[in-house]
Amino acid sequence: MKKVAIVANGLTKFNKTEKPLDSLMLSSIKPIFENTKNLEQKDVDVVLTSTNAHENYLANIISELSGVKPKISHSVESLCNSGTNSLVSAYAYVSSGLAETALVVGAEKTDNPGLVLDWDMSRGEFKHPIFWASMFTSAHMRKYGTSLEDLAYVSVKNHKNALDNPYAYFEKPFSFDDVMHSKNLTGNIRLLDCSMPCDGSAAVLICSEEKATKYTDTPIWITGIGQKTISASFTKNDDLVSMESTKIAVADAYHMSHKTAMDVDVVELHDAFSVCEIIELEDMGFCQKGQGSKFVRDLYNTDDKKINPRGGLIGAGHPLGATGIAQVVEICQQLGGKAEKRQVSGAKTGLVHNMSAGSTSSTVLVLES
Amino acid sequence: MKKVAIVANGLTKFNKTEKPLDSLMLSSIKPIFENTKNLEQKDVDVVLTSTNAHENYLANIISELSGVKPKISHSVESLCNSGTNSLVSAYAYVSSGLAETALVVGAEKTDNPGLVLDWDMSRGEFKHPIFWASMFTSAHMRKYGTSLEDLAYVSVKNHKNALDNPYAYFEKPFSFDDVMHSKNLTGNIRLLDCSMPCDGSAAVLICSEEKATKYTDTPIWITGIGQKTISASFTKNDDLVSMESTKIAVADAYHMSHKTAMDVDVVELHDAFSVCEIIELEDMGFCQKGQGSKFVRDLYNTDDKKINPRGGLIGAGHPLGATGIAQVVEICQQLGGKAEKRQVSGAKTGLVHNMSAGSTSSTVLVLES
Repeated sequence: MKKVAIVANGLTKFNKTEKPLDSLMLSSIKPIFENTKNLEQKDVDVVLTSTNAHENYLANIISELSGVKPKISHSVESLCNSGTNSLVSAYAYVSSGLAETALVVGAEKTDNPGLVLDWDMSRGEFKHPIFWASMFTSAHMRKYGTSLEDLAYVSVKNHKNALDNPYAYFEKPFSFDDVMHSKNLTGNIRLLDCSMPCDGSAAVLICSEEKATKYTDTPIWITGIGQKTISASFTKNDDLVSMESTKIAVADAYHMSHKTAMDVDVVELHDAFSVCEIIELEDMGFCQKGQGSKFVRDLYNTDDKKINPRGGLIGAGHPLGATGIAQVVEICQQLGGKAEKRQVSGAKTGLVHNMSAGSTSSTVLVLES
Repeated sequence: MKKVAIVANGLTKFNKTEKPLDSLMLSSIKPIFENTKNLEQKDVDVVLTSTNAHENYLANIISELSGVKPKISHSVESLCNSGTNSLVSAYAYVSSGLAETALVVGAEKTDNPGLVLDWDMSRGEFKHPIFWASMFTSAHMRKYGTSLEDLAYVSVKNHKNALDNPYAYFEKPFSFDDVMHSKNLTGNIRLLDCSMPCDGSAAVLICSEEKATKYTDTPIWITGIGQKTISASFTKNDDLVSMESTKIAVADAYHMSHKTAMDVDVVELHDAFSVCEIIELEDMGFCQKGQGSKFVRDLYNTDDKKINPRGGLIGAGHPLGATGIAQVVEICQQLGGKAEKRQVSGAKTGLVHNMSAGSTSSTVLVLES
């Protein structure tokens, strides 16, 4: 398999804006063309767009508006992990030799679909994602004694991390009491346990090993990829205290990269709700099963930014089609030593975890500087 | 680059039906699982869905309904060449080594979007595809003297070919007079010069060289791939007598496969309107520029089925997301000697041409037995 590098990235502020979807995408692409040495529009072989928006021919529109005439252009949709699906697809084009250079851009608007999961008959009337999160939360509480206080630490930590992320949706701190007393939505999930749907866009440029040094002195290598779909219905998870697709995806990503959780210096994981971070830390081997809450509390108490340094989805916001790509951008900045106040010292190996719809599908990427 | 084979395929009848989109997709997948030796659901690493429908998480839904738990699943959209975009994406997954076996399924319903091209500001009020086709027709008439009679031969030939295709939308012949006197829509395009939007689905299973003989004794190899996007706006074509994206895509596909038009035995090309077939035959080197009309007339007069043996889009119907895959299915059947009454004798090398939105993007594939 040919090596593939991430050589440039771009982000927009995550917020609520009047900008249409295509303008958002152009805003995250613009810094890539402005800041990447030797990059010309004619170099781009692939343009993939990632969104849940119901737009047709979007990748062609973005190509034309960017002045790019790629070989390959299309839109990719897989709900909340559309972003990493499009990145892995671009990886495959480059790794196979069909393309040298690929631009991947994701964006979402809060009025795009994807927040109500109409297709999942196993949910009955409970079609908002908060209901699967509530059931995972209840199950984890029953089996491992996870408390509302434990969940609050995830939110407080990630909101705190987001304060050092100039692109984050939230710009003010939330105290432990703020989270504990935020509006209780399901009995075990409060408003501040939830990631915030918002507008935003993220983009990365990837290329073959041969081309990487043309564009950057600090390429970030995609060394591990794991993806798994178990279903479209969250009740197909074997139990509700772990995420089967995540466990399979992370095992494949570790195998491909010859790494384990012990080797990972910095992580962006899919904390759609507080309970997700706890379960995912356990399922990806960062702690023993049932120890996720203690792990998060230790991170908080030691001001360790290793997990979700940009604030995760809870602190930075969750523009669905952009999220997976924004996670990748953060890890690239961390491994490139460009994460400023968020920098995890000496980070050489990073991990991205991006999932959809109650972990019915997951993507895990290992990145290395 | 690792070799990739098409090892199985499935189709639905193209018609108008009450079946929902997911049921249509399952109907074209079913024969693949029923008829492919040694194939089990657990073997499928990738499920890609191709459609213009505004469905979220469709590839996961289709995976679950098919009993498949793939590594990779997402939906691909690029308007009328969504089908070949998804196939080339699957090729990249297999060729790169990220996957061994991939299922690609396309489907459309006539009430799906894609028939009105809202994004193309260069069209002004003329947003239905018939208007770009009308402008191409006018330009070709002016420059090469193409006549309404010439266009009618495309339609009569393709409707005639479709009579031997049990999956075609049209089931009755149309005479030269029928076409000439069908409703005149734009002055130079009659109703029977148009492909018919309809419901339908098509699917193929592809795999690595190592796995091909496990599933079939007659693999069809994807030996040439060319894709090009020039814009989202059809007026960006340099002129309106040729299709720039098609010329670039076919050159790349010939280069990769070490073939020329001379080597190609059978073709499925994107005759969205009669004029398209004439222009594409010229642009892909099957005849000199300006000789497309004569070429089609000769095919008709000699009852030669080399071009669009299943009836093309005009005879078989045009369910957008399924079309590119259905074209591939036809060429696989031709190269496998399984095309029954449509069989082009001794066909060893075939070509698929699938394009979108006034040829603003094109895919060309060379397939070999």
